[in-house]
Amino acid sequence: MSAVVRVACCQVAPDVERPDHNAEIALEAIASAVDAGAQIVVVPELVNSGYVFKSLEETHAAATTPDGDLLAGWAREAARGDAVVVGGFCERGPDGRLHNSSALVDGDGVRAVYRKLHLWGEEPRWFAPGDQAAPVIGTRYGRIGLAVCYDIEFPELTRGLALAGADLIALPANWPREAPPSGAANHPTEAPPARERPILHSLAATTAYLSKVYVAVCDRWGTERGLEFEGGSVIAGPDGWLRAGPVADRGLETLVAECDLTGTREKRNGEHNDAFADRRPAYYSPALARGPRS
Amino acid sequence: MSAVVRVACCQVAPDVERPDHNAEIALEAIASAVDAGAQIVVVPELVNSGYVFKSLEETHAAATTPDGDLLAGWAREAARGDAVVVGGFCERGPDGRLHNSSALVDGDGVRAVYRKLHLWGEEPRWFAPGDQAAPVIGTRYGRIGLAVCYDIEFPELTRGLALAGADLIALPANWPREAPPSGAANHPTEAPPARERPILHSLAATTAYLSKVYVAVCDRWGTERGLEFEGGSVIAGPDGWLRAGPVADRGLETLVAECDLTGTREKRNGEHNDAFADRRPAYYSPALARGPRS
Repeated sequence: MSAVVRVACCQVAPDVERPDHNAEIALEAIASAVDAGAQIVVVPELVNSGYVFKSLEETHAAATTPDGDLLAGWAREAARGDAVVVGGFCERGPDGRLHNSSALVDGDGVRAVYRKLHLWGEEPRWFAPGDQAAPVIGTRYGRIGLAVCYDIEFPELTRGLALAGADLIALPANWPREAPPSGAANHPTEAPPARERPILHSLAATTAYLSKVYVAVCDRWGTERGLEFEGGSVIAGPDGWLRAGPVADRGLETLVAECDLTGTREKRNGEHNDAFADRRPAYYSPALARGPRS
Repeated sequence: MSAVVRVACCQVAPDVERPDHNAEIALEAIASAVDAGAQIVVVPELVNSGYVFKSLEETHAAATTPDGDLLAGWAREAARGDAVVVGGFCERGPDGRLHNSSALVDGDGVRAVYRKLHLWGEEPRWFAPGDQAAPVIGTRYGRIGLAVCYDIEFPELTRGLALAGADLIALPANWPREAPPSGAANHPTEAPPARERPILHSLAATTAYLSKVYVAVCDRWGTERGLEFEGGSVIAGPDGWLRAGPVADRGLETLVAECDLTGTREKRNGEHNDAFADRRPAYYSPALARGPRS
């Protein structure tokens, strides 16, 4: 079984002051990608709200529920193109708490909502962290694992998605640019040395390589209230090379890669090795995971 | 507590047909590094034997025991320079089986021997895999985690070393060159695209970045029986940037980096985050580790 799937990452720039506009540009980008034949479409983290909130009221005002108009619009586009859409959104839960979530939607509607487990920076001011494991969802194109932005810095999570059968890890992101323009807060690291690439791209490449899966990072671009984003979308293949991206000018662009998703189920590594069969879990640290709460 | 430690990787080229020569060049390289003030010295995988064996007899003839002359020589150099030496060697165990091992030696002698858990390529023809977890050893310069070459492709192992307190992961390697010269067997991947670096360097960088540790890869160079090695030694820092290497011409060179090893115990990541405290082990897959055999 081997079928090439067209995966698209729509690198748009939401604006925290214009939630209605954000929903529109995300839907337009999804529609354009579907028109261009994309079968799996990924949009950035918090695509309906933007990122740099100044108050909880502002975050609440931008939030939506999984049964709201936002994901219904994505489902209509998915149905129109026989596609799957994955995207980050600002979610209001039934208890009124907000979550930094990622939804997987197809023509039948919302298939899964994952709430980001690892919150970055000031996100805990606005969002409650997830309390469920990151899921893997079977789709007509392959099995898709969900994670959001900073989650990629937890190899336990990404490896776990691959061990659970993910062919593709879809990662909406809002990655702060690694070269701080003027001492702005919230930057995770100093600027990379001239010869280096952003660490995000090495993380995507090695996450894909280690577990022989595809990793589609859909980042945002632009600046909000002094915070510049990386515009660092990339699609990495199971050989560890970038199949699409990064965007040359960090701006608006839809990246597309042809991905043999079901081919990733073959974990062979050279003539004699296998990335999964070679594992020695009896000798790994029990500190890696405590397993799901019961 | 913060002290800068000088870490050296001696990228030598053993020759599978000259085990005595191999022991000599390794000892000379260690002595030179100690003379130059190195406090932790790393030499490549299987430095006493070379790699491309043609028979089990050849492998046996090159093997040594931890109490043999090889590691005694390293211990003398360690004592002379108040240094710690980590290196890969072809080990003959008490039961006569051979192992692809790494030893940590200081002025008091052999402190630890780790037997490679993940064997690459044809190594199972010559070596029995390890049956103990990879260790972390406290030294006067910091805590050193041991792993060998292909082990770096198992994030469970490297993350486990960091969670067990490693400040530095010392990784002797014999990395086959990623650009196959003429269809030679044993090459793990195709040549990297022109704009890419060898996956080994991204693996070192992201392993260091994710757990905020140093990673010292001491690779070998040269060609044995048609197999060319990468000569890809690098030292990566906890920010994910390469602090030393790669060697420009892939040849003989000792890389040196000044490493704030105990500083790695601070796992903060930006203003609000912490690479370890942010972990959510209750939601990670129990498949990651079964824990030590009892």
